[in-house]
Amino acid sequence: MKIEKEHLCHGGRLLYCSHDSQATKTSMRFSVFLPPQATKGDVPYILFLSGLTCTEDNFTTKANAYQNAAKQGVAIIAPDTSPRGDDVANDDAYDLGQGAGFYINATQEPWDAHFQMEDYIIKDLLPLVEGELPLLPRKSITGHSMGGHGALTLYFKYPSLFQSCSAFSPIVAPSQVPWGHKAFRAYLGDDQAEWQNHDACALVSKAQDASDNAPILIDQGKADDFLEGQLKSHLFADACQNAGQALTMRMHDGYDHSYFFIQSFMDDHIDWHVGYLS
Amino acid sequence: MKIEKEHLCHGGRLLYCSHDSQATKTSMRFSVFLPPQATKGDVPYILFLSGLTCTEDNFTTKANAYQNAAKQGVAIIAPDTSPRGDDVANDDAYDLGQGAGFYINATQEPWDAHFQMEDYIIKDLLPLVEGELPLLPRKSITGHSMGGHGALTLYFKYPSLFQSCSAFSPIVAPSQVPWGHKAFRAYLGDDQAEWQNHDACALVSKAQDASDNAPILIDQGKADDFLEGQLKSHLFADACQNAGQALTMRMHDGYDHSYFFIQSFMDDHIDWHVGYLS
Repeated sequence: MKIEKEHLCHGGRLLYCSHDSQATKTSMRFSVFLPPQATKGDVPYILFLSGLTCTEDNFTTKANAYQNAAKQGVAIIAPDTSPRGDDVANDDAYDLGQGAGFYINATQEPWDAHFQMEDYIIKDLLPLVEGELPLLPRKSITGHSMGGHGALTLYFKYPSLFQSCSAFSPIVAPSQVPWGHKAFRAYLGDDQAEWQNHDACALVSKAQDASDNAPILIDQGKADDFLEGQLKSHLFADACQNAGQALTMRMHDGYDHSYFFIQSFMDDHIDWHVGYLS
Repeated sequence: MKIEKEHLCHGGRLLYCSHDSQATKTSMRFSVFLPPQATKGDVPYILFLSGLTCTEDNFTTKANAYQNAAKQGVAIIAPDTSPRGDDVANDDAYDLGQGAGFYINATQEPWDAHFQMEDYIIKDLLPLVEGELPLLPRKSITGHSMGGHGALTLYFKYPSLFQSCSAFSPIVAPSQVPWGHKAFRAYLGDDQAEWQNHDACALVSKAQDASDNAPILIDQGKADDFLEGQLKSHLFADACQNAGQALTMRMHDGYDHSYFFIQSFMDDHIDWHVGYLS
């Protein structure tokens, strides 16, 4: 792990890091905020997964997360959204290829060579940061849009790994919306039964003991241009109710899909997770 | 004035605006945050002037200002740092031309045609926003780096206009540092006596009744790579002491020149100004 840049921020350390990933066979980047409390001992952390087109920088510069993270004594890790590089497959569209990894392992050519983002997060990134940084293994997961899909699906796929889960404006049913159709067909192929293994609504429906999970917090703007066509958050509310998964879904008048929305409710998500991490 | 984009943020309205400036003879851009209280009546505002290379977007996305502005009921205006366009003079360097207007009126060709940033701020922008937005005429001024120079110099040039002044990492003595030499020679010519009219250290030294001014707040990172060569904040501390200008200058161990520094102390600056605006 190489520290590329470091800034002092709200009394904590903000690091931009790179490392070689076995899963993606590329160099990967992420940011980490270590609160002041990390100088005295290991701290719990929150993993934030970003949305389409984002790098590790969008959350880091725009989400207003570090003031409250410093106050609460929680670290935050924000990885890039895909492998990148001239040797990595790509697509001209913003919603496929580099910047659009969808936090799954691709099985189809040419994507399977590097787009192994689920393994990257679970097998490479988390062990790396827990081994090299002053972090407890206690962690929670959140994310935005495509990263909200990542947070929800990884929470259900690895039920013992995360203490709690939340999301901003998540894609909750990729099997039922254009963004998901396009990405899953490219990365996973045409077998829609396989898609269900990476769809938050499908995963919660077949989860063992969903009623034992911590409640999930979702914030969604009602003026979000993607709500009707791509996000369809009501599908997840229905699926959680049927599965017995506790859910706090807040629908906010006037808020859109941007980081101005995310920053407006970021403190609440940090407080929410700290309640389960402490 | 045209609203180009609008986002709800912390319960307030964040607008990106454009308008035609008589001073610069170009279209100019700025952002404005209107706190929730502005729906009930006019509110005071803070003018934030950005640094070299910035547009109106850097502060707007990175400074973490709006949570506290919403709480305190104060608006914030963040203009672009220069005129822009294919017909506007420019330089390949980052510290001259577009993105580097220095908040002064150029007298030298080719810059004098459009680089009239002092007149732009004072004669175009402030009357515009006070006329078209729910703002009181009560306002304060702050800024970062080149924008800190802008805040300090405009505060001394127009002593009745602003209730209070603060700065992050300001250029305090442009007549004595490379950034200022280069810009002032290009925009103002070789007469260094004229430069003194746009130099915060010189202006406070000749200010009438500086002891009647509100105290000035300056935050400066001690790990700022520009501190020694370009900022020289101690020169302003000395000049204020000699002139009787009250100054709170805080030197912060470990902090650099970035927006991660600015965001760390933004709440303090908003609180500081609100104390004079209320």
